[in-house]
Amino acid sequence: MIGRLIERIRETQAPIVVGLDPQLGFIPDAVKAEAYGRCGETLEGAAEAILTFNKAIVDAVADLVPAVKPQIAMYEQFGIPGLKAFSETVSYCRKKGLLVIGDVKRGDIGSTSGAYAAAHLGTVRVGANEYEPFGEDFATVNPYLGTDGVKPFVDICKSHGKGIFVLVKTSNPSSGEFQDRLIDGKPLYHLVGEKVREWGEEAMDESGWSEVGAVVGATYPETGRLLREVMPKSFILVPGYGAQGGTGKDLVHFFDRDGLGAIVNSSRGIIAAWQKEAYASYGEAGYADAARAAVLDMKADIAQAIL
Amino acid sequence: MIGRLIERIRETQAPIVVGLDPQLGFIPDAVKAEAYGRCGETLEGAAEAILTFNKAIVDAVADLVPAVKPQIAMYEQFGIPGLKAFSETVSYCRKKGLLVIGDVKRGDIGSTSGAYAAAHLGTVRVGANEYEPFGEDFATVNPYLGTDGVKPFVDICKSHGKGIFVLVKTSNPSSGEFQDRLIDGKPLYHLVGEKVREWGEEAMDESGWSEVGAVVGATYPETGRLLREVMPKSFILVPGYGAQGGTGKDLVHFFDRDGLGAIVNSSRGIIAAWQKEAYASYGEAGYADAARAAVLDMKADIAQAIL
Repeated sequence: MIGRLIERIRETQAPIVVGLDPQLGFIPDAVKAEAYGRCGETLEGAAEAILTFNKAIVDAVADLVPAVKPQIAMYEQFGIPGLKAFSETVSYCRKKGLLVIGDVKRGDIGSTSGAYAAAHLGTVRVGANEYEPFGEDFATVNPYLGTDGVKPFVDICKSHGKGIFVLVKTSNPSSGEFQDRLIDGKPLYHLVGEKVREWGEEAMDESGWSEVGAVVGATYPETGRLLREVMPKSFILVPGYGAQGGTGKDLVHFFDRDGLGAIVNSSRGIIAAWQKEAYASYGEAGYADAARAAVLDMKADIAQAIL
Repeated sequence: MIGRLIERIRETQAPIVVGLDPQLGFIPDAVKAEAYGRCGETLEGAAEAILTFNKAIVDAVADLVPAVKPQIAMYEQFGIPGLKAFSETVSYCRKKGLLVIGDVKRGDIGSTSGAYAAAHLGTVRVGANEYEPFGEDFATVNPYLGTDGVKPFVDICKSHGKGIFVLVKTSNPSSGEFQDRLIDGKPLYHLVGEKVREWGEEAMDESGWSEVGAVVGATYPETGRLLREVMPKSFILVPGYGAQGGTGKDLVHFFDRDGLGAIVNSSRGIIAAWQKEAYASYGEAGYADAARAAVLDMKADIAQAIL
């Protein structure tokens, strides 16, 4: 799957992923009113509003970017109807030719991680039939439980041609509390990065890159430089650009010399662009066009930094 | 919520939680055939079989134990129908007076963790209405992202009277890969335990225990002894008893002198007891009675160890 991602990055010239993390506050009132009119102010109504909003954004950006990253928590908070909207968002994006990174941050002991891996990247058997429960192309994975929590995901990557991004250094302010602590002179994230390299060796793609990538926050550029060297064959998914404070010039170290090796996420900065002063001229009704403009600006910002 | 758990432990004299982690292989063929007959060999059929199986187990053990722990991965692997079965299992158990620990191992950056916390322990607002999406009483939380990933859960514990168990030392074989590594002379799990104590101080219950507990595997009894001291006010949820190799005598250090402070989970050992030689006399049709017998045996094993 990493090979397809690289292909799509080359086609679009945009190492960008649009984070589909729709909070109700990002959705224009008219979209919500229409959904609540049909379904009431219910979980179903919220899910309907989210799905309508997502589809409009996706329609507006699908030709510009290789991938989207729905954050499942934003759907899970609306219960079963919310998770249906997650599932339908995944399907809709795949139909539009976008690769889908399920930002699920799952991870558990062996057999349980296997169930999560099947849910998001694999298939499940019921009697004589085989089903693809959610069908993302990539998923994010939490490494705290060690190899036997990650391995079932790596196995599914190999058997189903999928990919994962393992949390190595996250973008949040307190990520250093455990991740930066020194173990034999190296921060924990460095050790996790070494494991990512090791896990990844088992799941190499023809492109020369591994199906096992890593998450490293844009908010820690020096860490990005180190981890780029520690995991030379692992793509880095970079959150924290834009709303969390990362800028184009912070990103340069996450990329390889040929401009590959990283893909940068922006969520709020794109999907809620219509609420920002810079895109106010689009108005509330122009939220999807504002998202398109924000993607084009982000593309220019990153191109300038990595060229 | 920890106060209610303690009350129920005292009533039942059983510091035991039944893990509702139904793999299709644990479910008798007759139950599956009946469900597939109604819904086909579909995700809905699998979900129906799981729900029927869970209800029978719950009916058989509800008077013996204070709590159940459904592992959401086992439901998530059957997509939306599976997650509906999770949600219905939670509701059914609560109606039966059982406390429900959602074994979800969620954790993300601040606002996203907030969405997970709302999904599982809190409420969510849609227009003028407030909904309880899944409605567990407790949830398990992954600490890798540090304080700002855990804090939204602690806040919901305080505002909604709920509880959490933070992963400190997990029961799986490779848990030591990161969790046991020494940082300033202390294993990472020790540092996480210290944070659990700190987070927990903010959310003390009238019982004198904190709403912030910890997960420590039965498979590491010496670690249990240390962590019992590091987190004197935090209940320990102990997985790994039975199928994973932990026995009653391994558990003694997880408990306080008054026999409180820990609650021991068994999943397969109870719900799939009918497949074990010791309970074979119950037969396939007696799977729920076999589960009840297994709970009674576990209760005796633990009582013997901690008295």
